[in-house]
Amino acid sequence: MTRFFVDISMSLDGFVAGPDAKLEEPLGKGGERLHDWVLRLASWRSTHGLDGGETGPDDDLVRATRERVGAEIMGRRMFSGGEGPWEDDPNADGWWGDNPPFHVPVFVLTHHDREPVVKEGGTTFTFVTDGIESALEDARAAAGESDVLLGGGASVVQQYLRAGQLDELNIHVAPILLGGGVSLFGELGTDAPGLKLRKVVESPFVTHVSYEVVKA
Amino acid sequence: MTRFFVDISMSLDGFVAGPDAKLEEPLGKGGERLHDWVLRLASWRSTHGLDGGETGPDDDLVRATRERVGAEIMGRRMFSGGEGPWEDDPNADGWWGDNPPFHVPVFVLTHHDREPVVKEGGTTFTFVTDGIESALEDARAAAGESDVLLGGGASVVQQYLRAGQLDELNIHVAPILLGGGVSLFGELGTDAPGLKLRKVVESPFVTHVSYEVVKA
Repeated sequence: MTRFFVDISMSLDGFVAGPDAKLEEPLGKGGERLHDWVLRLASWRSTHGLDGGETGPDDDLVRATRERVGAEIMGRRMFSGGEGPWEDDPNADGWWGDNPPFHVPVFVLTHHDREPVVKEGGTTFTFVTDGIESALEDARAAAGESDVLLGGGASVVQQYLRAGQLDELNIHVAPILLGGGVSLFGELGTDAPGLKLRKVVESPFVTHVSYEVVKA
Repeated sequence: MTRFFVDISMSLDGFVAGPDAKLEEPLGKGGERLHDWVLRLASWRSTHGLDGGETGPDDDLVRATRERVGAEIMGRRMFSGGEGPWEDDPNADGWWGDNPPFHVPVFVLTHHDREPVVKEGGTTFTFVTDGIESALEDARAAAGESDVLLGGGASVVQQYLRAGQLDELNIHVAPILLGGGVSLFGELGTDAPGLKLRKVVESPFVTHVSYEVVKA
């Protein structure tokens, strides 16, 4: 059975974006610091069409994650930062230009119908309007023998956690306090699933913690 | 210079107590699971007057922490769970009976005057009503060459972080989602200090992360 997992950077105070996210500052105030650890890595640079970069445990981990992913799911806000009808979204093409860094089929959860978009480098964006379970079915079918990555954002992560459909949480804890913003887990209440620690990988720049989600 | 540090268990979703904390359930719903990792340890058992227990990296870390502490600061809620005048507090003697597990001078932050209480085993409770800086001065004086531990709770941790007085954050991340409750960091806003990763220690039961607080 292939696996469905989250892979996301979070501040020590639990935020995946800082306060006041907007089109010009999609990760909110200070939020770009969540990703300082990854931007230096050879694996990250190569998926973005860049040479060079650092190797080591952080890089090995990012590379291994990329290699297991056959499809990705993300929320509309992560895709464009917008909401509502696509024709009114100033960032309707997404953040990533002609050759996005995903290189796999991406399924975008939205309430607004739209034809699929085919980009260079193997990335396609398919817009799913009939719910998270349908998106997961589509992504699993597209991924074949590979795993499905849930890229974010927080709202979508919480929806899949409540629905009991995630197998694994991989959190990159950045050594920062954002002071506010978008909380990854929010308040799941009694829907919060059990966890089991899988693995910890550390570097001076970030702490990677991986958990198995315990199915009820 | 001696150091002033936090040492506290937190869930992956950032809570140091579960929802609906009350006298009969001081850590709220599910909150006792925050401490599952420590209750098994020889070092924890010995401070509570019990024999036996497990050794290993978790135990080494707890023992090393205890050995550096010369005084502790805690909030009124952590001391008794109550608020308001002491004569109306049904738990005014605290949670720990005649021989509390601290074995050092403890300074309790409160708005309500009270004479010090001397317990067995080296624990004294001194009640400080003139603010967090005063409590820290008293605790540093009592600790001498040793360090000062801030035991909690969340409100007091946030107050000292905002005031820029903490040197070190030691967080034991329990592999659980509490779904709600008392958030350790809350929303510190622009008062959130910088951090630098010091050390990570892992075990199957908990992930210990230690940060240096970067002074402005």
